[in-house]
Amino acid sequence: MTHPLFEKHRATLDGALNAIRTRGYWSAYPEMPSPKVYGETAQADGKAAFEACLGKEFSLDQPGRQGSVATEKSPYGVTLGVSYPKCDAEALIAAGLAAMPGWQALGAEGRAGVCLEILERINKRSFEVATAVMMTTGQGWMMAFQAGGPHAQDRGLEAVAYAYKAQAEVPAEATWEKPQGKNPPLVMKKHFEVVGRGVALVIGCGTFPTWNTYPGLFAALATGNPVIVKPHQNAVLPAAITVQIAREVLAENGVDANLVTLFATDAHADTQALARHPAVQSIDFTGGNAFGNWLYENCRGKQVYAELAGVNNIVIDSTDNYKGMLRNLAFTLSLYAGQMCTTTQAIFVPAGGIDTPEGKVPFDQVAADLGAAVDKFLSDPAVATAVLGAIQSPDTLARIEAAPQWGSVVLASKKIDHPEFPQAEVRSPVLLACDASNEAAWMEERFGPIAFVVKVADTAAAIALSERVVKTHGALTVGLYTTQQAVIDAMTAATLRSQVALSINLTGGVFVNQSAAYSDYHGTGGNPAANASYADAAFVANRFRVVQRRYHV
Amino acid sequence: MTHPLFEKHRATLDGALNAIRTRGYWSAYPEMPSPKVYGETAQADGKAAFEACLGKEFSLDQPGRQGSVATEKSPYGVTLGVSYPKCDAEALIAAGLAAMPGWQALGAEGRAGVCLEILERINKRSFEVATAVMMTTGQGWMMAFQAGGPHAQDRGLEAVAYAYKAQAEVPAEATWEKPQGKNPPLVMKKHFEVVGRGVALVIGCGTFPTWNTYPGLFAALATGNPVIVKPHQNAVLPAAITVQIAREVLAENGVDANLVTLFATDAHADTQALARHPAVQSIDFTGGNAFGNWLYENCRGKQVYAELAGVNNIVIDSTDNYKGMLRNLAFTLSLYAGQMCTTTQAIFVPAGGIDTPEGKVPFDQVAADLGAAVDKFLSDPAVATAVLGAIQSPDTLARIEAAPQWGSVVLASKKIDHPEFPQAEVRSPVLLACDASNEAAWMEERFGPIAFVVKVADTAAAIALSERVVKTHGALTVGLYTTQQAVIDAMTAATLRSQVALSINLTGGVFVNQSAAYSDYHGTGGNPAANASYADAAFVANRFRVVQRRYHV
Repeated sequence: MTHPLFEKHRATLDGALNAIRTRGYWSAYPEMPSPKVYGETAQADGKAAFEACLGKEFSLDQPGRQGSVATEKSPYGVTLGVSYPKCDAEALIAAGLAAMPGWQALGAEGRAGVCLEILERINKRSFEVATAVMMTTGQGWMMAFQAGGPHAQDRGLEAVAYAYKAQAEVPAEATWEKPQGKNPPLVMKKHFEVVGRGVALVIGCGTFPTWNTYPGLFAALATGNPVIVKPHQNAVLPAAITVQIAREVLAENGVDANLVTLFATDAHADTQALARHPAVQSIDFTGGNAFGNWLYENCRGKQVYAELAGVNNIVIDSTDNYKGMLRNLAFTLSLYAGQMCTTTQAIFVPAGGIDTPEGKVPFDQVAADLGAAVDKFLSDPAVATAVLGAIQSPDTLARIEAAPQWGSVVLASKKIDHPEFPQAEVRSPVLLACDASNEAAWMEERFGPIAFVVKVADTAAAIALSERVVKTHGALTVGLYTTQQAVIDAMTAATLRSQVALSINLTGGVFVNQSAAYSDYHGTGGNPAANASYADAAFVANRFRVVQRRYHV
Repeated sequence: MTHPLFEKHRATLDGALNAIRTRGYWSAYPEMPSPKVYGETAQADGKAAFEACLGKEFSLDQPGRQGSVATEKSPYGVTLGVSYPKCDAEALIAAGLAAMPGWQALGAEGRAGVCLEILERINKRSFEVATAVMMTTGQGWMMAFQAGGPHAQDRGLEAVAYAYKAQAEVPAEATWEKPQGKNPPLVMKKHFEVVGRGVALVIGCGTFPTWNTYPGLFAALATGNPVIVKPHQNAVLPAAITVQIAREVLAENGVDANLVTLFATDAHADTQALARHPAVQSIDFTGGNAFGNWLYENCRGKQVYAELAGVNNIVIDSTDNYKGMLRNLAFTLSLYAGQMCTTTQAIFVPAGGIDTPEGKVPFDQVAADLGAAVDKFLSDPAVATAVLGAIQSPDTLARIEAAPQWGSVVLASKKIDHPEFPQAEVRSPVLLACDASNEAAWMEERFGPIAFVVKVADTAAAIALSERVVKTHGALTVGLYTTQQAVIDAMTAATLRSQVALSINLTGGVFVNQSAAYSDYHGTGGNPAANASYADAAFVANRFRVVQRRYHV
């Protein structure tokens, strides 16, 4: 008996399975916030749903309630005032474990079907989720819709596809018949059951509360585990809506809703205690090195999937499209004011300059032209506020303030007024120039709109430096501009050694900081920036175990 | 261009791929030491090859040679006197890393082909390897041949099959074409390269130096990693022959032989230093909890695949074949004198006895009958020595000596003379009876021929106890005897929770301590006895990374 939700969503799952096998372009959830797709009233409905949440407690009927907690401040200066039930971690764990056998009993197909139903419901509420993402993270509207909505949903579906595939490859049963020469064969019937590991803890980040949460959430769920979502304290609402939807779908389908719960807290120690709880078997985390390394140190024996800091970088050797390169980089540096884990921080330029169709451009000129390109791109305030969004964290504001000490300022950061949100903290990028030898300045993640044009001896030195930075400090993205095949080959070899994704000669509508579900592996798991990838077989294979039983027939 | 060795072995690989998908019976390497299969002179040749190794240094032309080391003592009392080159760990690491790019360049198919060629060569030298296994581990001849030869080779091939499959599912390249409404699509070419993680360290055990080494060795190799094999100091020769063969095949095929090296040492600190070396990215280990836990604690950030101690157990509720059950258990307890990681240690029997076709058999009678069955099975000295083999370690001899303190002796261990090897340490099992409450006695691994008939209140208590033991102390195998479907169901549910493999009503020619490649998952990875399984997708998925590059076309 196939689960009805598996049947309902089978074509979508098949699409995702085909996509992860071929890794071309594919998407299950339309990325354009079009009324034709999402409904004529979808935007207004989403906004209204978001506004209905403000100033009151978010409805989540979870066990172990101990009070409520409200921790969010909008980077747009809007008063949120949403509070969330604060629940005892032991109660959430116990409830999750109690829900596990029923979830287990659905099997891989049933679980995939329910997960796809959850994703479909989330998709239908994309405008509401997007508004929540925008208002909690400071993302611009279009990014909040796309990255926080359909792109995040695609990453969730991608994880379900990998999880389903891995489980489907374990046969439910087998007959084992071993010849015994002239004697009758030994015959055994064997059953193989896929079982989850136990409670999965998924810890979200403040900048991408859905995109970086859905892979772990859905990978863990689809493989049979109860999930506790611990959102970043400044981006709770997108996670809370997600959990609410998941609980609704579970309950509608006869599964104990406590399989998925929200752990909202204002105390870091609560999260640490939960992470160390023996029942917690896996932890997905996106965030800083301090807590990431704490997890590595303190959660041994648990599966930890972590995306941490890095120093993304680009090597510029030469280009056949200087203006296109500058435009592309200007957008990359501006998008969400550099608050993406994939944004470039260091741009290596040879001291002798770079070759372009217009001739050799000296180092200082490259830096100045890039600064001018950013400035020009952001000269229209409407474009600037839409692309930059607002600064998510006071720490980032402080880093921008302090940035000039780290190099010579090519372009200063500007505070930009937002016509709609007068208290929004909008900042343009600061671009600095410095020498490669000044490693203390640029060879450390400076999260936010802070980028360095780094002077290197030559292209070979740039490639070697990129490799060293990735190996020692990590990176999710590396870029290269060159007209020389030999340089492409050398950089390719370097990135194979340092295990980082490489984008070559992006001068058009694709940017180094963009990562497309089903096609781009986000992180390799092979350098310090992340120990796992969205998504691959390794992202799901350890989230379940196979338990067999056998007997003679 | 397909690698010639991939073509040569494609049918074998396809057989293995089909076997791991269906998990029925399959084998690539004949388990019977038949002259018809292995050649009329194979046994004599193997024995001669083994004897040619004795009393001299084993030939391995490895870098960083610092001297030689001889550490093996035969449990059969035979003087071995084989010495091995002792090599600087740094030199082995550097040489392995230097060999990595060439190995990488072969691709997944080429690597699988070379691995299968290595396995074929090992298979042809099964008699030599088996003699080395027998003489270093104390296994009886037939077990040494089967488990040390073809069964180990099958486990190696199984790992290659999983590794090849996981890599083959990553497409080498893709064209990503994203529609842009009325504008031309965005088109990118993407390349995806599978790269190994770095140096793999495979640490062998003293009892199964090939069966427990080949899965890690071949999983790591096939996924693109250099491998350093650190054998147990008392079972070096089987590993050395394996490494020698691997190096020969690699060199013949244009791959730097230093991709696979042997790290022979008499200093535990050397192994610890090597395990902690930053270049070592994965560690496969079979052995005791002390070093296993040291690895967990000290090798964070590395992939550790560990098989440690456990308390394997059987629940007896009832049987429709009492004599068959006793015969089956007698063999299980006797085989290799209980020195298998899968041997049963605790047999839970209700205080009120068990139901049999002959009526209720009281607890004491079950214990006595089992003791008598073991005694009878081993009454023929030829059978006894062949099945029991010799005791591998002085520690095990001491445990046998000390065992009577842990319960009331149902059957005492006997020292048995070996007609061929007068100094062989042959011991029959000691069977003890005790109450379940005496947990200090039986609820700890007592490796070797030491088993307990444990008195429990009733079957329900036995099932609950089994679950608790597995969850807290681990187990690779659990068994059940019952005529009641409800008891099977309850035990099935318990083993799904404790994540351990269950064998039900074994009364014939299959034993709870046997685990067949391609069909039986050896360990689930879900209880403390092991954090990984031979073999599944999780055993290979984290041994490589995917590195992509992309550019517009």
